[in-house]
Amino acid sequence: MDRVTITYKIDNPAEYTAPIMIEGLPGVGHVGKLVADHIVDELEGVLVAEIISHHFPPQVMIDREGTVHLPKNEVYYIPGDQPLLILTGDCQSVSPEGHYVMTGHYLDLAMEFGVTRIYTLGGYGVGHLVETPRVLCAADQTELVTLAVEAGCVFSPDEPPGGIIGAAGLLIALGSLRGIGGIALLGETSGYLVDPISARAVITILSKLIGRDFDPARLQETAEELEGALEKLKESEADRERDDLSYIG
Amino acid sequence: MDRVTITYKIDNPAEYTAPIMIEGLPGVGHVGKLVADHIVDELEGVLVAEIISHHFPPQVMIDREGTVHLPKNEVYYIPGDQPLLILTGDCQSVSPEGHYVMTGHYLDLAMEFGVTRIYTLGGYGVGHLVETPRVLCAADQTELVTLAVEAGCVFSPDEPPGGIIGAAGLLIALGSLRGIGGIALLGETSGYLVDPISARAVITILSKLIGRDFDPARLQETAEELEGALEKLKESEADRERDDLSYIG
Amino acid sequence: MDRVTITYKIDNPAEYTAPIMIEGLPGVGHVGKLVADHIVDELEGVLVAEIISHHFPPQVMIDREGTVHLPKNEVYYIPGDQPLLILTGDCQSVSPEGHYVMTGHYLDLAMEFGVTRIYTLGGYGVGHLVETPRVLCAADQTELVTLAVEAGCVFSPDEPPGGIIGAAGLLIALGSLRGIGGIALLGETSGYLVDPISARAVITILSKLIGRDFDPARLQETAEELEGALEKLKESEADRERDDLSYIG
Amino acid sequence: MDRVTITYKIDNPAEYTAPIMIEGLPGVGHVGKLVADHIVDELEGVLVAEIISHHFPPQVMIDREGTVHLPKNEVYYIPGDQPLLILTGDCQSVSPEGHYVMTGHYLDLAMEFGVTRIYTLGGYGVGHLVETPRVLCAADQTELVTLAVEAGCVFSPDEPPGGIIGAAGLLIALGSLRGIGGIALLGETSGYLVDPISARAVITILSKLIGRDFDPARLQETAEELEGALEKLKESEADRERDDLSYIG
Repeated sequence: MDRVTITYKIDNPAEYTAPIMIEGLPGVGHVGKLVADHIVDELEGVLVAEIISHHFPPQVMIDREGTVHLPKNEVYYIPGDQPLLILTGDCQSVSPEGHYVMTGHYLDLAMEFGVTRIYTLGGYGVGHLVETPRVLCAADQTELVTLAVEAGCVFSPDEPPGGIIGAAGLLIALGSLRGIGGIALLGETSGYLVDPISARAVITILSKLIGRDFDPARLQETAEELEGALEKLKESEADRERDDLSYIG
Repeated sequence: MDRVTITYKIDNPAEYTAPIMIEGLPGVGHVGKLVADHIVDELEGVLVAEIISHHFPPQVMIDREGTVHLPKNEVYYIPGDQPLLILTGDCQSVSPEGHYVMTGHYLDLAMEFGVTRIYTLGGYGVGHLVETPRVLCAADQTELVTLAVEAGCVFSPDEPPGGIIGAAGLLIALGSLRGIGGIALLGETSGYLVDPISARAVITILSKLIGRDFDPARLQETAEELEGALEKLKESEADRERDDLSYIG
Repeated sequence: MDRVTITYKIDNPAEYTAPIMIEGLPGVGHVGKLVADHIVDELEGVLVAEIISHHFPPQVMIDREGTVHLPKNEVYYIPGDQPLLILTGDCQSVSPEGHYVMTGHYLDLAMEFGVTRIYTLGGYGVGHLVETPRVLCAADQTELVTLAVEAGCVFSPDEPPGGIIGAAGLLIALGSLRGIGGIALLGETSGYLVDPISARAVITILSKLIGRDFDPARLQETAEELEGALEKLKESEADRERDDLSYIG
Repeated sequence: MDRVTITYKIDNPAEYTAPIMIEGLPGVGHVGKLVADHIVDELEGVLVAEIISHHFPPQVMIDREGTVHLPKNEVYYIPGDQPLLILTGDCQSVSPEGHYVMTGHYLDLAMEFGVTRIYTLGGYGVGHLVETPRVLCAADQTELVTLAVEAGCVFSPDEPPGGIIGAAGLLIALGSLRGIGGIALLGETSGYLVDPISARAVITILSKLIGRDFDPARLQETAEELEGALEKLKESEADRERDDLSYIG
């Protein structure tokens, strides 16, 4: 395999034009991934591409049936008046440089599908439990910040104090350099738990921004399924560390 | 040397066709390596190739006679009705990306020798001593999972929770992309000790899957030898860390 | 984007010749950055180039208006009898090798603008609060050490004991290989706090060396603004570490 | 600069043929560096080449006069019946892969000067003070192990348990692949201190092996000088760690 391999799962990519891409890769509170997986599930997304990479963790996941798969990113297509492209998956890059490289590939793919607007979804860890999470926003241009605030986002000039880390931030900034407008939606979350409550707050605002209705009741379900899967990945990380030590001993 | 150097130890690789490759590189409990070394020892494997790489630890091992050798992987050939190729060695990659790179080279080599089935062997660390270790399995296709279960493996949809890390997992998933079927056999083990008991459980099942008998009594012996060698490597790791600190101080 | 992208913000770089470059990137006590930002602010520097890179942290910063920007380095031009080029920004490389690579690009740029002398500014962390900070110096040739001492620097053969880390040191040594003379000015600082007092000591000496007057009263102001921005970046770093753990869990 | 830059300090490398190379780069107890520096000092070595590299620490050292230099490796030529090439310097690679890369360059250089035998010098950290340090040995062939034992080395099949880390080990193993015989001499040392006593034990044996006399009384002097320099480097490492944290905060 090359350092990054994109496999198309459809015959005619040209037929799958989508003006909007929504990114929900794993991150703080898995808020983004919860929302992305929920949309794919509820709106029956069509898998259009899979991405594997040397920048991902060097391991395999085991599916329910005992079969293995490489850690991967997936792109789903959701038809409609305004078709959506959903970017989700098992992981992000394990190296700092890999984040830049992978984001470049995500944007190549977005441009191929005609994307002109990107929404990135994530969590904003505040270190304590939040009952009524706010959704913070940032964008590549002030017009889009205004749009997000009108949809219910809170804009707070000092939050998140640390900026946005990983694909959720780089997609907005590097996308802007290619002429793609972008909004990041960050649901407040403790940062210690998978957080479907924060995800529900994010999907409510996203729903207004993209003009699509979702059934948030089903989010709880998705959250419970994901929580099981994440538990497995967490232990894997711990395993890997133990394993690293034992490679040469 | 190049970043990866494969040195053939035989004149006519074309004469050494083998449908089955068995991987047993160092890992949790050194279960895989114990089994692989035992097979090479008992069935008098012929060394067909050695692999050294920039991705391996930057050090040398000292042999019993005081001579040094680079950390390396070795491929042995075992004749028979169904010849075997055994992949074992001192180490795996020290970097995440290196795991992907090395697995690519292992698969190139497997294809050169006509391999159509890969068994990867490893330990599944459970954090406590296990008296009667189960052997878990995973594969690239459900038919092979069934095969492994029939041979005595336990298939548990939630174990190992963290997937399979390093070559044992990547060989199955990346091999599958090249049309090579693969089964991973993971013996339960504490994760803290070299574990010949877990290795015995794994070799018993492997024996059924490949249709070869082994003398498990000799495994204990091999284990004791390996334990000595591993002790040396462990201290080496500690040395290296101390050494890293002292390079510029 | 390429691994390093330099974007010119002016039409005719050839018209912006400057014999002197002053580097003040983030570092110990943010002494260098405080001074560089102050000079750009007080002397109304013209932004001539921006640098983004895979070697920088994989994240975005959020501006006051809610818009995002990539971590970047900036080069400002300050007209005058002896025009100045100021190199400042959000970050330095996150990898050891990246420091060498980025310094190479800084020097390419310096040569393009005709730079023949580089001043690098930084802090020298002493681990305790310093009321009247000394400014230590180092240079690529003894004549320049003498010059710095005449301007008020302290030359102490055993300080800083650990040399100079990052761009502030490499610019002097690698610049010298290209025939550009360089002086490093290091203000004593605790190392734990953003330190405008140390920055004031450094700017006083720099002022003599380059023959320009500055209004140190305004430095306090700049310091307070920066302190807010740094607080955000610090939390970002903490976020990223938490995030790294949660990428696959 | 390229990733590795070798600068010759002599006009006609072809006139400086040397059959023997002695490596003494920084490592455990700085035993190897103490010996190498002592030989260069006592036998008035001629600097023939300097090596700088992206694989070295991203910083500069400050000399007694306040001038800076890049962390570098140096090669000295010592005339005589059997001329010597001495490889010493400030540092080794900071990355695992860099050790392999740099060793490749050291060997290119060795072959250019006609080297046919390499002695690598280092410390063997035992974790406690040693009054009468043994000198352990390893080599690329049993004949050379015998030679070292005849010269007073101890050959102990289980020591050092962890092999030899960094250039001292890789030069022997990778050199052997190029037909250059090599012996590693490792002086017992606590591992916590710069150890001139261990260095004296090593130079005594090296003296017999290469047929040259040294004045060990002067070693103490060299040790004291080095101790000062090392103290500076150690603090630099600590500085860099603090600095790394503060780059973006």
